[in-house]
Amino acid sequence: MSPARFLPILEWSRSYNAATFTSDLNAAVIVTIMLIPQSLAYAMLAGLPPEIGLYASILPLVAYALFGTSRTLAVGPVAVVSLMTLTAAGRVAEPGSQAFIEAAIALATLSGGILLIMGLLRLGFIANLLSHPVISGFISASGILIALGQLKGVVGYTEAGPVNLPTLAIGIPALAFLFWVRKGLKPLLMKAGLPNRLAELIARAGPIMAVAASTAAVVAFDLDAAGVRTVGAVPQALPPLGLPGFDAAIWQTLLIPALLISTIGFVESVSVAQTLAARRRQRIQPDQELIGLGAANLASAVSGAYPVTGGFARSVVNFDAGAETPAAGAFTAVGISLAALFLTPFLARLPVATLAATIIVAVLTLVDLKAPLRVWRYSRSDFSAMAATIALTLLVSVEAGVTAGVVLSLALFLWRASRPHVAVVGQVPGTEHYRNVLRHQVITHPNILTLRIDDSLTYLNTRWVEEFLIEELAEHPEVRHVILMCSAVNAIDASALESLEAINQRLADGGLQLHLTEVKGPVMDRLQDTHFLQALSGRVFLSQHQAVEALRGH
Amino acid sequence: MSPARFLPILEWSRSYNAATFTSDLNAAVIVTIMLIPQSLAYAMLAGLPPEIGLYASILPLVAYALFGTSRTLAVGPVAVVSLMTLTAAGRVAEPGSQAFIEAAIALATLSGGILLIMGLLRLGFIANLLSHPVISGFISASGILIALGQLKGVVGYTEAGPVNLPTLAIGIPALAFLFWVRKGLKPLLMKAGLPNRLAELIARAGPIMAVAASTAAVVAFDLDAAGVRTVGAVPQALPPLGLPGFDAAIWQTLLIPALLISTIGFVESVSVAQTLAARRRQRIQPDQELIGLGAANLASAVSGAYPVTGGFARSVVNFDAGAETPAAGAFTAVGISLAALFLTPFLARLPVATLAATIIVAVLTLVDLKAPLRVWRYSRSDFSAMAATIALTLLVSVEAGVTAGVVLSLALFLWRASRPHVAVVGQVPGTEHYRNVLRHQVITHPNILTLRIDDSLTYLNTRWVEEFLIEELAEHPEVRHVILMCSAVNAIDASALESLEAINQRLADGGLQLHLTEVKGPVMDRLQDTHFLQALSGRVFLSQHQAVEALRGH
Repeated sequence: MSPARFLPILEWSRSYNAATFTSDLNAAVIVTIMLIPQSLAYAMLAGLPPEIGLYASILPLVAYALFGTSRTLAVGPVAVVSLMTLTAAGRVAEPGSQAFIEAAIALATLSGGILLIMGLLRLGFIANLLSHPVISGFISASGILIALGQLKGVVGYTEAGPVNLPTLAIGIPALAFLFWVRKGLKPLLMKAGLPNRLAELIARAGPIMAVAASTAAVVAFDLDAAGVRTVGAVPQALPPLGLPGFDAAIWQTLLIPALLISTIGFVESVSVAQTLAARRRQRIQPDQELIGLGAANLASAVSGAYPVTGGFARSVVNFDAGAETPAAGAFTAVGISLAALFLTPFLARLPVATLAATIIVAVLTLVDLKAPLRVWRYSRSDFSAMAATIALTLLVSVEAGVTAGVVLSLALFLWRASRPHVAVVGQVPGTEHYRNVLRHQVITHPNILTLRIDDSLTYLNTRWVEEFLIEELAEHPEVRHVILMCSAVNAIDASALESLEAINQRLADGGLQLHLTEVKGPVMDRLQDTHFLQALSGRVFLSQHQAVEALRGH
Repeated sequence: MSPARFLPILEWSRSYNAATFTSDLNAAVIVTIMLIPQSLAYAMLAGLPPEIGLYASILPLVAYALFGTSRTLAVGPVAVVSLMTLTAAGRVAEPGSQAFIEAAIALATLSGGILLIMGLLRLGFIANLLSHPVISGFISASGILIALGQLKGVVGYTEAGPVNLPTLAIGIPALAFLFWVRKGLKPLLMKAGLPNRLAELIARAGPIMAVAASTAAVVAFDLDAAGVRTVGAVPQALPPLGLPGFDAAIWQTLLIPALLISTIGFVESVSVAQTLAARRRQRIQPDQELIGLGAANLASAVSGAYPVTGGFARSVVNFDAGAETPAAGAFTAVGISLAALFLTPFLARLPVATLAATIIVAVLTLVDLKAPLRVWRYSRSDFSAMAATIALTLLVSVEAGVTAGVVLSLALFLWRASRPHVAVVGQVPGTEHYRNVLRHQVITHPNILTLRIDDSLTYLNTRWVEEFLIEELAEHPEVRHVILMCSAVNAIDASALESLEAINQRLADGGLQLHLTEVKGPVMDRLQDTHFLQALSGRVFLSQHQAVEALRGH
């Protein structure tokens, strides 16, 4: 329980030196260039003024640098969380209104609080409730929803008409350029003789180039007068700090959405962080990650911004660009601060179509159309949870989708947990091994019925075991001894204990004896003091073979 | 899939004869005598007019006789469900009002529908979510609540004053008599030379005697004029049949309470039915029981009455009195019909205090004060769920209590399910057995790390396994081969498969190989077609020993 447990910065800052600084700074420059257009675009996607995207990319990065355990995770606004913010805040206010901004801040506050509490109470396992297929289906469906929504921006859809030609003239080339630049520019530059790092930097600046070129086009041809929507005035300032407000009714409405936002954000963030950490044989601590992301969200709320988390693409870029410590994130925060102070005047006439194109290109990488097929082939029940998630996300809402996925996964899990594998076993001839009578040629005795239970006995599955036993007894009326072989029983809960007592009593009423064999040490310790062992009509044998030897004549 | 699967009456009616008829009729007479005061009292407890208790004891019994599988279960109004009805219907209307009666009917309709659907879809396992400690805690706490509530009736509490002496003069003797008659009267009668069956009948008629005597006292001394509350006019008629109404808003409010009522009712009913059936080596089919109880509740709704289920004490009496088939229930229905037609005029001046005393005596048998201590000794986590159920039932509401118990049990179950038992294993010298290094003296090799996973790999626990592996690897940097010993892995879900792929990839990136051993047949079949097996850096060995022999030099 050293202070470094809660402040990982105390750990990595000790070995910080000039070389680390250079690597981190390099990575920070590339991530900043990538983040400026993304943060504006995601804020827009969330229904918020563009500067709020910048605000969400300053203090949260510093907070994560202090408390987070991943050395390369790039925190900030991300597409899926922006969409979820739009949906959730849209429940209590109109996008564009001041109340909507306050709802987004409330979401950041709640998410931060939830993550922090989960971290302090070490409740990270709650995130396990989101299975891979559910997450994957949810992210893909959200990506499709976002891309479809942004198409309007690219073609200039308004209530006046479905397509605005000048917008289209900017949007389509921007989209094409951004798609091409992601893969095409870097090899071209390297072929032209540029060093790798410079080629990488220029390629990552693709979106910035699109922003600059399309803004220039608007200015040159007065395209805003021709119906091209632009970003409009953006305040030239750092985030206005202040404590977020509190409104009980709004918090109550937003609590569940905030829970979903923070859980989804956490799961996505941790899996990126773990993947990247493993490549360098580093560790991340999930419970501390909760605290790091919680602090980042609270910092976002204090900055007047909305929920943030670790971004997938951005973290990979940060990693590839050589980031070695969370300081890279803090340097990125400085970069975004400079942008907020000095770049904003140039954003007023930036066409929204360019930002929409940026979003489309970014989110389509999230869509994995092959995953449902792969899951379908492997597991029908996982597929059903995934399909429900995708269908409800697309057709109803992001919240309905992820909730349906979680509930269905859980229901299927519980259904399986309520039917443990139970086998009737017999002796493999010439050995002391006992195996399933359905799969092996084994010796059984007509007066003995042995059930091997391949799971712990819990309140969920004990009824099933009872019914299995009753059916077997109905088929074998000559049985006088029932043996429960407990070699795979790791625990017996209070409900299962009561069931065993009831089974014992019923068997005794019918003149049958109940025996246990191969009970594990910890299980036996707990049974020792109970009424069950005193009332047991039969015996507890150390081994199954001893039991059969002792009982087969009786 | 014979018709008898859905209509058990087709099964048992074939062997029906004069002897069975006599036994059933005998039992029906005793149960009728017991049920008349109880049904009036429970209706009053539910905030309903007394005749509705009688209505709930006619058609529902006939419906259960047709569809139920227990030969001795006595269906009708019960204490806990009556309390739950009062709470639930009280959410939408004032007790005593017509709207309240309609809400109670809606609860019966919804409960019937829920049970029927669960039965047809074979969803009986949902009832497993109520663990024994939660049920036991809930029943005890409800019993205490009911008894405390009825004390007012016994002492004659009104807004005018806390105690009404004439009421007290009836209530206290009635209470004392009823307590005594349960155990004291039958031995006395048998000592006086009465045959067993007659003594039993007279003892069971104790509540009826209290009803008759106290009514006579009211009539003789005009006690109602002295402030003794009486039942008042009861219609002399059979239940007025009619389709229950439908109000979307009310149904929505009552859906969750109805779900709780039907689940609690089902669990209680099935456990009584199973206990009694086992004593005679009979079977009950839980999924068909859902249909039987569903039909009973719909019949209750059609009769203008409220939710019913199998009663514990009443079923035991029915069983002890010799009931052999569900026809006993139908005969009881005839008995209650006669009471509704001919006995009701005598009920107008029956003091409420007597009914309150009947309820107190009945529910106190449900309270098990030793159970919490017993559960505490055996399992702290089961106890915490039980304690939460008791505390919230007593302090907040019956619905909050049972919900808290279910949620807490489930959370604890999932928490445990998310941390499977994983052991590092080594070879027991001189054998081919591999055991936990922490518990046995075993041989290990520095280049090999073997983890035995004692559970199926699922989305809930796969992250834990990953973290366990990462920690072990950090402690053993010289390891080149990781072996997962899968002898206890019954299944690998899609999330766990992806985790295995990620683990394999990360290990390969670090120059380590991943191997599997002792994979079960069905698990291997499903892995066969996956990308995982193709990408696996190591091999799949049939036995753990083969793997160690092959890898220890490398």
